[in-house]
Amino acid sequence: MLKQVADQALVLGQAKTGQGHVATYIPELGKADPNKLGMCIYTKEGEKICVGDTTTRFSVQSISKIMSLAIALEIYGPAVVFENVGMEPSGDAFNSLLKLENADGTPYNPLINAGALVISSYMVQMYTFEELLETVRKLCMDPDIVLDIKVCHSEMSNLSRNRAIAYLLESKGVLNANVEKTLDYYVKLCSLSVTAESLANFGLVLACDGVNPLTGERMLKVETARIVKTIMLTCGMYDGSGEFAVRVGIPTKSGVGGGLLGVVDGGLGIGIYGPSLDEKGNSIGGIAMLEYVSKEMDYHMFGNRKRG
Amino acid sequence: MLKQVADQALVLGQAKTGQGHVATYIPELGKADPNKLGMCIYTKEGEKICVGDTTTRFSVQSISKIMSLAIALEIYGPAVVFENVGMEPSGDAFNSLLKLENADGTPYNPLINAGALVISSYMVQMYTFEELLETVRKLCMDPDIVLDIKVCHSEMSNLSRNRAIAYLLESKGVLNANVEKTLDYYVKLCSLSVTAESLANFGLVLACDGVNPLTGERMLKVETARIVKTIMLTCGMYDGSGEFAVRVGIPTKSGVGGGLLGVVDGGLGIGIYGPSLDEKGNSIGGIAMLEYVSKEMDYHMFGNRKRG
Amino acid sequence: MLKQVADQALVLGQAKTGQGHVATYIPELGKADPNKLGMCIYTKEGEKICVGDTTTRFSVQSISKIMSLAIALEIYGPAVVFENVGMEPSGDAFNSLLKLENADGTPYNPLINAGALVISSYMVQMYTFEELLETVRKLCMDPDIVLDIKVCHSEMSNLSRNRAIAYLLESKGVLNANVEKTLDYYVKLCSLSVTAESLANFGLVLACDGVNPLTGERMLKVETARIVKTIMLTCGMYDGSGEFAVRVGIPTKSGVGGGLLGVVDGGLGIGIYGPSLDEKGNSIGGIAMLEYVSKEMDYHMFGNRKRG
Amino acid sequence: MLKQVADQALVLGQAKTGQGHVATYIPELGKADPNKLGMCIYTKEGEKICVGDTTTRFSVQSISKIMSLAIALEIYGPAVVFENVGMEPSGDAFNSLLKLENADGTPYNPLINAGALVISSYMVQMYTFEELLETVRKLCMDPDIVLDIKVCHSEMSNLSRNRAIAYLLESKGVLNANVEKTLDYYVKLCSLSVTAESLANFGLVLACDGVNPLTGERMLKVETARIVKTIMLTCGMYDGSGEFAVRVGIPTKSGVGGGLLGVVDGGLGIGIYGPSLDEKGNSIGGIAMLEYVSKEMDYHMFGNRKRG
Repeated sequence: MLKQVADQALVLGQAKTGQGHVATYIPELGKADPNKLGMCIYTKEGEKICVGDTTTRFSVQSISKIMSLAIALEIYGPAVVFENVGMEPSGDAFNSLLKLENADGTPYNPLINAGALVISSYMVQMYTFEELLETVRKLCMDPDIVLDIKVCHSEMSNLSRNRAIAYLLESKGVLNANVEKTLDYYVKLCSLSVTAESLANFGLVLACDGVNPLTGERMLKVETARIVKTIMLTCGMYDGSGEFAVRVGIPTKSGVGGGLLGVVDGGLGIGIYGPSLDEKGNSIGGIAMLEYVSKEMDYHMFGNRKRG
Repeated sequence: MLKQVADQALVLGQAKTGQGHVATYIPELGKADPNKLGMCIYTKEGEKICVGDTTTRFSVQSISKIMSLAIALEIYGPAVVFENVGMEPSGDAFNSLLKLENADGTPYNPLINAGALVISSYMVQMYTFEELLETVRKLCMDPDIVLDIKVCHSEMSNLSRNRAIAYLLESKGVLNANVEKTLDYYVKLCSLSVTAESLANFGLVLACDGVNPLTGERMLKVETARIVKTIMLTCGMYDGSGEFAVRVGIPTKSGVGGGLLGVVDGGLGIGIYGPSLDEKGNSIGGIAMLEYVSKEMDYHMFGNRKRG
Repeated sequence: MLKQVADQALVLGQAKTGQGHVATYIPELGKADPNKLGMCIYTKEGEKICVGDTTTRFSVQSISKIMSLAIALEIYGPAVVFENVGMEPSGDAFNSLLKLENADGTPYNPLINAGALVISSYMVQMYTFEELLETVRKLCMDPDIVLDIKVCHSEMSNLSRNRAIAYLLESKGVLNANVEKTLDYYVKLCSLSVTAESLANFGLVLACDGVNPLTGERMLKVETARIVKTIMLTCGMYDGSGEFAVRVGIPTKSGVGGGLLGVVDGGLGIGIYGPSLDEKGNSIGGIAMLEYVSKEMDYHMFGNRKRG
Repeated sequence: MLKQVADQALVLGQAKTGQGHVATYIPELGKADPNKLGMCIYTKEGEKICVGDTTTRFSVQSISKIMSLAIALEIYGPAVVFENVGMEPSGDAFNSLLKLENADGTPYNPLINAGALVISSYMVQMYTFEELLETVRKLCMDPDIVLDIKVCHSEMSNLSRNRAIAYLLESKGVLNANVEKTLDYYVKLCSLSVTAESLANFGLVLACDGVNPLTGERMLKVETARIVKTIMLTCGMYDGSGEFAVRVGIPTKSGVGGGLLGVVDGGLGIGIYGPSLDEKGNSIGGIAMLEYVSKEMDYHMFGNRKRG
């Protein structure tokens, strides 16, 4: 039945791709084919349902924010990580400076750019980019993840706003490393090339409390998985997180490369690729697919006991 | 085992009450005894665990916001209700005017004062206060809920800020009824006197998707319960909602009367009374109890599959 | 020569009236004839130059803010008046609530609605409306100023936003009298019917440091006149005050009834009527006239020594 | 008489220096002697009244903002200069990012850091630093002005916030040159070493509409001088500009190096040095001196006709 729902979701999603646009503020992203769309649903029982374009590589972009958050929590623990970054939704757009100005200078949460830069400033001190890449490959069970050099260069050339945010954080004393090194690390992380499959694998690990259910290997602590899922739920879709939680109820993180990573807690990881974006920067076809699947399969977090 | 955990939670909570203060901005609330503390946990199997002061009556205050939201959703449906109020956490304090100014004038969500006033402006047109009272009594399985006249008068005499919010909403065209009638309705709703038991009962109905598990009677639609729980999770604890979701993971709503209503989805309703408040206006002892119970019993929403 | 300049200014101003709109948020104001335009320039030597429609009565609206400020300064002195209202331009629109939220609750200056309400709350305690009316008639040398009942009623029926501001001020503890009495007083003051001539007379008194140059009678203290002129210059044209000071350099206050009152310090009072407004709410023809006259006659405050 | 007033002002100012603090956010500034205080008043008739420490060199800091504004107006004219920077007081602190976020990205005025950076981005393209230095020396009639290398280095090492502002401006498309070159130019300009005498000379040129009254040489256009004086009046003292205009009424610009430059239009230039600052970053002794002199000599802009 899940296969039929996925097939139908693809049809519905494809009908939406024409209404969106690929990201253009990073020129290299503008080259993506807006008609591409695909979804993988991986279950803890080992079932793998893939529909559409699920092997195309694309840059992970903001979905990397939950990867670096997870790894930082593993290395430093929540007490240290949340010293310089909060856990609150900001109610503002992803690249806002507004909320930095009001409070004590710490970013609202790790999934806005400012917060992710703080996380990167922790990581860059302890973890080389090569080590990070190795860990991301393991979490995604995808040894073919590499740095997309073209995207990385394109982003490096259009970095003024993130550079402004990073220098502002430094001036507030909440950045833990050199600004330019932090930005370099952050941009490289955003430029990793993944597939819908890679994302589904990482989603499954989160759904299973940090364990790869196929091998039984623990990859993240239970607490790390719980924190990441909760923050995905409250902050993962920027200033549309609240409405998405009500309508879909699946902790999800999006990236402007067209990716979506969803976690149906206790059972499923979902990876989506669809570079045509809505006006908030989320995959327009992907959102439609996720919403349909959630409704048909009763995947809303406050509806899941009927599945068991 | 749940009983022992509840007993221990009470001990821990009582150790906290001295660090808070009762609300004083409504003079009548200032008369509460700060040492009072009690908790009821009601399960769908019919178990009722009560520790401490669980029969003291106190005014429901902001917890009424989830009652009126639930009833409005039943009467009007989500499409109408969310025309003039959003579903996003605001990142601001409960009585903030800041976010009203920026957007299209619609309040961020139904659990801030502005949003609850919009909801009241729907209700006041279709539902007399007597009808409302009757429905609240049923949802709480508590026929003794009455209007606390003293609290109501005290609040009516200290209404400048809410009156400002209501007139501002009217000027933006997002209030659906006469301002003074809406305020009167809103204040009466806040002044209903409940107990920890009443709150646990309503919590249990939400946990069971709108059904009273003891009688099998459906009291709310599945969709209503799901929406209310989700918004409690993302917006229920004001500008501390995100951190509370990470640490405790139980959809909860607080009131400055000292009440807390928590929902462990699929199984439990929790009602708490403890009028000594922390600096955010939440029951200081109650928060400590909820956090301890969640941790010991693994009630975090992203940890619940291990219970089954 | 001044007469020719005034005549030419009228021609230029009339060419602009078609590009603006009369105010409609108060329905009664919407009935004004957008083609009307007139200007009076009164000099301390007794010269009176009037061009266009200078005897039409219209409601004084926000220009009353400098009248009540002047009278409050006379009665209470600056130390008391500026306890609950500041002297800073806000950089925001005239009816903004934004800046009230940030600071200590005191309005930025007496020429935004919030500030004028604070001033009214001082006045209402000490000065009946009849006394106020008498003083305004004297300052404007116009015994025919009356309350325009229709405008007053129209405004009273559209008072939500000002009512919101007033209740907010009350909740902050910066209003000195009953909210509804203050609003009533404020609206009546805004509804006084003046002419371009009345405004020119009051402007001349300010230009002459508080003395009626024709009779020699002192009507305001030197200090009062100085404070009022300075605040007109920095705050008189709302969020366009800075640019107006640079380009025109004449302390000016506008009202949505179409009036403008300008003060060429040391010599002239200027009154203008032109109900067609630009998007900031200032008389579109009147602004054009003032700018032309300032340039041709070198009336900019930092150009005036060449006149002597 | 002016000499006695100046002497008395020095006594009053010295009594204040103990209540302030030297700037420390740029470490090199922290080395200044907080007890230093001096004032020069230069008149168009050639009178030079100097009291206290008027030959000590100190860095010009934000007072350079009126120098670069004046020069940019000379080179580009107001139409070009005000394309990317406004003329409105912001109501916020000098280094605020808040107002950049709301509007179209253009800074509120040329005297906040963001605005001065835009001005520098114009200058850096057309005017080498050596040319700029030469012009500043002429405007200040002080050939000994040099770049203070220590201050410049110290500031370059503490530039995170200004760097953030500059990159933000670049991301908004309102910076006209390379960010790092603009910052370098801006910091050098702030690091020029002046004396109270240099500032009095430049003030006198502004007071005389751009002419050096001693030589008769025109150094700035009339329009340039008028614009600079007006913007000094409305924006020169940051979020205290409005109150300063009311109380003192002398267009003034301050710098955290301890300098103040005041212009009594039509007659006088005033230069002050006093590195002990109040909490807004203005010379605490200098403000007291200016206020006293203004009051005693009737130098308020709306009191000046009695002097003639």
